[in-house]
Amino acid sequence: MKSDLDQLMGEYKLDALVVVGDKAPNAYRDYLTRRSKAVGTVIKKRGEAPVFIVGNMEIDEAAKSGLQVYTWFDFDYAELYKQHGNNTQVVRRELFLNYFRKLNIAGRVAMYGVGDIGDALLYGMSLQDSALNVELVVGGEAAGLFNRAYATKDPHEIEALKETAARASRVVRNTWEFISGHYASGEAVGSPVIDGDGRPLTIGAVRRFIRAQEFDLGLESPHGLIFAQGRDAAIPHNHGEDNDVLQVGKSIVFDYYPRGLESGYYHDTTRTWCPGHAPDDVQALYDDVFTIFKQVKGAFRAGEETAKYQLMVLDYFEAKGHPTLRSRPGTLDGYVHGLGHGLGLNIHEEPGFAEKSTSVITPGNVYTVEPGLYYPERGMGCRVEDTVYVGPDGTIHTLTDTPYDLVLPLRQR
Amino acid sequence: MKSDLDQLMGEYKLDALVVVGDKAPNAYRDYLTRRSKAVGTVIKKRGEAPVFIVGNMEIDEAAKSGLQVYTWFDFDYAELYKQHGNNTQVVRRELFLNYFRKLNIAGRVAMYGVGDIGDALLYGMSLQDSALNVELVVGGEAAGLFNRAYATKDPHEIEALKETAARASRVVRNTWEFISGHYASGEAVGSPVIDGDGRPLTIGAVRRFIRAQEFDLGLESPHGLIFAQGRDAAIPHNHGEDNDVLQVGKSIVFDYYPRGLESGYYHDTTRTWCPGHAPDDVQALYDDVFTIFKQVKGAFRAGEETAKYQLMVLDYFEAKGHPTLRSRPGTLDGYVHGLGHGLGLNIHEEPGFAEKSTSVITPGNVYTVEPGLYYPERGMGCRVEDTVYVGPDGTIHTLTDTPYDLVLPLRQR
Repeated sequence: MKSDLDQLMGEYKLDALVVVGDKAPNAYRDYLTRRSKAVGTVIKKRGEAPVFIVGNMEIDEAAKSGLQVYTWFDFDYAELYKQHGNNTQVVRRELFLNYFRKLNIAGRVAMYGVGDIGDALLYGMSLQDSALNVELVVGGEAAGLFNRAYATKDPHEIEALKETAARASRVVRNTWEFISGHYASGEAVGSPVIDGDGRPLTIGAVRRFIRAQEFDLGLESPHGLIFAQGRDAAIPHNHGEDNDVLQVGKSIVFDYYPRGLESGYYHDTTRTWCPGHAPDDVQALYDDVFTIFKQVKGAFRAGEETAKYQLMVLDYFEAKGHPTLRSRPGTLDGYVHGLGHGLGLNIHEEPGFAEKSTSVITPGNVYTVEPGLYYPERGMGCRVEDTVYVGPDGTIHTLTDTPYDLVLPLRQR
Repeated sequence: MKSDLDQLMGEYKLDALVVVGDKAPNAYRDYLTRRSKAVGTVIKKRGEAPVFIVGNMEIDEAAKSGLQVYTWFDFDYAELYKQHGNNTQVVRRELFLNYFRKLNIAGRVAMYGVGDIGDALLYGMSLQDSALNVELVVGGEAAGLFNRAYATKDPHEIEALKETAARASRVVRNTWEFISGHYASGEAVGSPVIDGDGRPLTIGAVRRFIRAQEFDLGLESPHGLIFAQGRDAAIPHNHGEDNDVLQVGKSIVFDYYPRGLESGYYHDTTRTWCPGHAPDDVQALYDDVFTIFKQVKGAFRAGEETAKYQLMVLDYFEAKGHPTLRSRPGTLDGYVHGLGHGLGLNIHEEPGFAEKSTSVITPGNVYTVEPGLYYPERGMGCRVEDTVYVGPDGTIHTLTDTPYDLVLPLRQR
């Protein structure tokens, strides 16, 4: 939680932390500035509130963060520009060092943020080489300071996550209804899905429908979305081809991970749908995934290591004869990814669910559970994913609110 | 241009460049991978085509880049995970170093990208400390390698920029029409703009209209947009308040900088509108801005330094009695920003137009021209901005296609 930052800084012996990065969104900055629209540098000394340093044009937006705001001109920007204006690299570096000089920051300092990597290296090396008495802390446990804070959400964050979950679930349900209003052009596997005028329904048209829904509900999908059928659905990160026509009897993986336009908090859910009817092999694949999905979800307990659940899924799938990354490293068949991940202002956060993760399920955690099976050569993939929240008493609450049906009924002509 | 990369690497004595960064968009990666949806590391040795290294789930999307694709498993990921899986930092660091070992990369190497800054520092420091015979080049001229390539667009990029310009201009024109379909509730300055049923028109409603247009036209606004009136319009980076009602006779700054959803290329344009009628002081402010806007646009010549044009604007505004950042450093009144900036896959690129910029106008440049004047205390701001392109023969072409009218006529009841 955000209120843990000082304690974590103490644990890692950090005297200050600096959030840089000229890009938006920058989850670190959003976290500290209540998602300010201003792009600037945030500096927090241990035991003190963060301060926000911005260009003079950003002052209004920055003030809405509730933080104390400075502009570059408070750090001799005018003078620096006069002296070094023909070399913006020098201006930026010296301005950055002036923050430390003028705010009297010394000791162990760690840098965080999302931004230009060349700039970050320049700032980092400058800090190391400067006469500032700053020790730049790179890597090690301090690198995970924000991740540790992020992992447990406070009530304000839970509200935002619930809001995004409700909206995202509505988009998924509406997308189901939209497709279900179409027709099967035939019973055979591979028959095109068509509209009332006989025109084929493409993945592009579905994606367009989803985007219109997002617009109405105040969501955005900065990382895109996966709506993929057949072989594409069997490659977990294939986004699907807009020109492809939806086909009867082939599994669709719809992985949807939008964030709230205002809050910035994500949701993540996947459903596997089979239009018209499900052939036996698709149904069998789905049954294996959905069985372990339910088992794992029912088994989550606060205080348990997350790795235990990944092992549970590995054991189950291997017993069923599916390859996994444990039984066959690098496999593209079978169970080829981890069980889940935390999410918040980032789509991937702590806790992790890898086999060797040391994360422990903790009240305040919000994470996905998403077992899946993939067979590209057989042209089918399947994944089911909910996002859950661990309440203060350790109870697991499902945030996703969407049915699990595999067969998506189509109209008959 | 992209085809200049090897020559630039030679000029800066770089043996290889590495594009890292787990975030999307990442203009450096988009530039080299034709905006691949896959998130991975790109490595280019001088004189060789770039290679793309991704997780095994990204292989399909990565292949669409046309680059040679490797997965982590080609760099002993399975072995690393087995040995160090309980410390993902070690796994990621060693995997990164394995790219250099296995691809036989040594010598002077520079890192670029957009991503997590803590990770970038970790990778950078690891390279420095490793026994790889790599010299990490930080800062200096090599830091600007991509910026130099970006600054001159190739024909494929110009097509993408023209496409976004046409769509963005249409959104601006449609927004004008949308507002113009509303009514002035009175003649007095500050009278609410209302619809046919007498309901006030809010900035939020205008923003919603714009977003719907974007949806239809395949645009997105990852950095938001500015639609601000009165005092808010006088703070250049204030985005405007959704709950505010549009008012008669107060200047609106509409700064619109979307990118094409597929291409990723930006456009940037600003118009100042005054609903119903323009009071004398708003008209006078507009006249000053528009006069120098036209003068500067007409004066651009390939081969001239960009700073010349910023100086032209400073001279003009100061002669008209307006404060500027030159006459009064740190001022929030008058002319408080630079004249323009290049744009492409980034909203801000070379060439720069600061007073001390050393950029020279060059065929292939695409940049904005955007003089403005701001008086927060007087509740008014004004900016006019077009994006222009310098053709192969040095001719300046305006990409923005939107009228410059100040007074936005409203219906009368």
